[in-house]
Amino acid sequence: MQDMSRNSLTGFAADLGGTKIAAARIENGTVVDRLIAPTDSAADPEAQIATIGSLLVKLGHEAGAPLGVAVAGRVDASGAWHAVNRGTLPAILGFGLEQYLNRRFGAATCLNDAAAAAFAEGLFGAGRDSDSFAYLTVSTGVGGGLVLGKRLVSSANGLAGHVGFVTSRFASLPCGSGRMATVESTAGGRGIAAAAAAGGHPGMDARAVFAAAAQGEHWAEGIVANSAKAVAALIGDLAAILGLETVAMGGSIGLAPGYIEHTRSALDEEPALFRPTLVAAELGHDAPLIGALAAHLRKEHP
Amino acid sequence: MQDMSRNSLTGFAADLGGTKIAAARIENGTVVDRLIAPTDSAADPEAQIATIGSLLVKLGHEAGAPLGVAVAGRVDASGAWHAVNRGTLPAILGFGLEQYLNRRFGAATCLNDAAAAAFAEGLFGAGRDSDSFAYLTVSTGVGGGLVLGKRLVSSANGLAGHVGFVTSRFASLPCGSGRMATVESTAGGRGIAAAAAAGGHPGMDARAVFAAAAQGEHWAEGIVANSAKAVAALIGDLAAILGLETVAMGGSIGLAPGYIEHTRSALDEEPALFRPTLVAAELGHDAPLIGALAAHLRKEHP
Repeated sequence: MQDMSRNSLTGFAADLGGTKIAAARIENGTVVDRLIAPTDSAADPEAQIATIGSLLVKLGHEAGAPLGVAVAGRVDASGAWHAVNRGTLPAILGFGLEQYLNRRFGAATCLNDAAAAAFAEGLFGAGRDSDSFAYLTVSTGVGGGLVLGKRLVSSANGLAGHVGFVTSRFASLPCGSGRMATVESTAGGRGIAAAAAAGGHPGMDARAVFAAAAQGEHWAEGIVANSAKAVAALIGDLAAILGLETVAMGGSIGLAPGYIEHTRSALDEEPALFRPTLVAAELGHDAPLIGALAAHLRKEHP
Repeated sequence: MQDMSRNSLTGFAADLGGTKIAAARIENGTVVDRLIAPTDSAADPEAQIATIGSLLVKLGHEAGAPLGVAVAGRVDASGAWHAVNRGTLPAILGFGLEQYLNRRFGAATCLNDAAAAAFAEGLFGAGRDSDSFAYLTVSTGVGGGLVLGKRLVSSANGLAGHVGFVTSRFASLPCGSGRMATVESTAGGRGIAAAAAAGGHPGMDARAVFAAAAQGEHWAEGIVANSAKAVAALIGDLAAILGLETVAMGGSIGLAPGYIEHTRSALDEEPALFRPTLVAAELGHDAPLIGALAAHLRKEHP
């Protein structure tokens, strides 16, 4: 199964994020139909899954069809779903997600959304030619996943790949994970907004800070540069730990104009050995959907 | 081979460190004979290997017998040996070690010494009951290795497992790796001596700083505590990245009285999810020898 072909991916997938739920029908590795609903982030898991179910029915899903479900948060080896950052989905506290999905839909595999995206990028996207690959998503938070030898790195507690919760010498604030001074707390959108507020520019979100930086406002340029420095140091750290060859960047901030270039500049300060190739993610919003279905099919046919 | 038994390990091993070379005969997983020679750290690789060869002959090695060789530095997938920290073995710059060893000894596998120790601890020592394990050695430098699913994590460039080169918010000085502010630069023996000198106590090595801390000198207690904090943060970082269950500590500083307790205290500040079980390494100086032979036998019979 190490050379799973993209063509072999036919089935359904869903992606449950902090703001929206996507469901898709996938044929031969391509998303051929997609439906979106808003996430009610205070809702309980059953209500979230009912929303997924109503989208899947419209897409033609029948019980037992291959189904991969990517979710924000941590999914442990027993299939239980936990919020890691309590700010995102506060009602999720160890819900038996995979079991529930299997009962309701006949067959399903669930995993963290960034891990699913990493798996898709590692097999079919920016990491397809790399044996040692990481995907980073820099958005409201910072997440990621690791694909070594074409296998997704996972762990019993489901935490593996949560690279945004690595500590950073470019950070100083508490993180929603409960750790101090993580990459997420300074590089993610929430961290960027907090840095702006702390610097005397309250009420600005990451988009507004990026706009101010684009207009040459020094305080905003400094915040964006610090975010990129934290991400570059994380990439060097992952290189030290795993000997990575390739890192792909995704997410609304990661793919914002100029952000990869900022990160590459910071990475250029590192010795060659700690400087994997840094590229943009290729699969966009399809990545978690394709990766979740791929994870399901690999589990069914290991 | 996933459940390689310790009993099945019979052959020879060598461990080439910055200060001494050890060679051993191993029978059924036990070091039954061991010889030591000093390392001439300025010597070229052929001279180092000649020393290993003379020890092996005395131990009864014959051409083609199973042989694992652990070395300070990085060994890439082609078997080439590189210094990572130029302070340790400055003459090693991409020497074709594995090929040379195979020509000279008939059969050999070589790998980084901390990776070899990690493999031994992961299979037969402190990590034997864990599916997701890291070994850290805190000594003059800081090294380590990762054993996931009973397999040693390796990479084409041989860097995987060099966790001492992860950056740290408890560090501020340049590191011999060329990176800035790594765990090694603040937690290792060289870093401890540098911190003492910077704090007005020049000419003291790590041992002297530990002795001063044991006598209640606050400046020294602060340096030791900072070293332990950097190591604890690294453990939390590895937990975020890999979902580790167990971490074993080795090395002359890691196993110094009180150091694990200091590290555990710092780790207690982390949320539960980022707090793997921290234990002392069990195999001592045998670990790199046993791990190198185990790596050789696994390569021969994968």
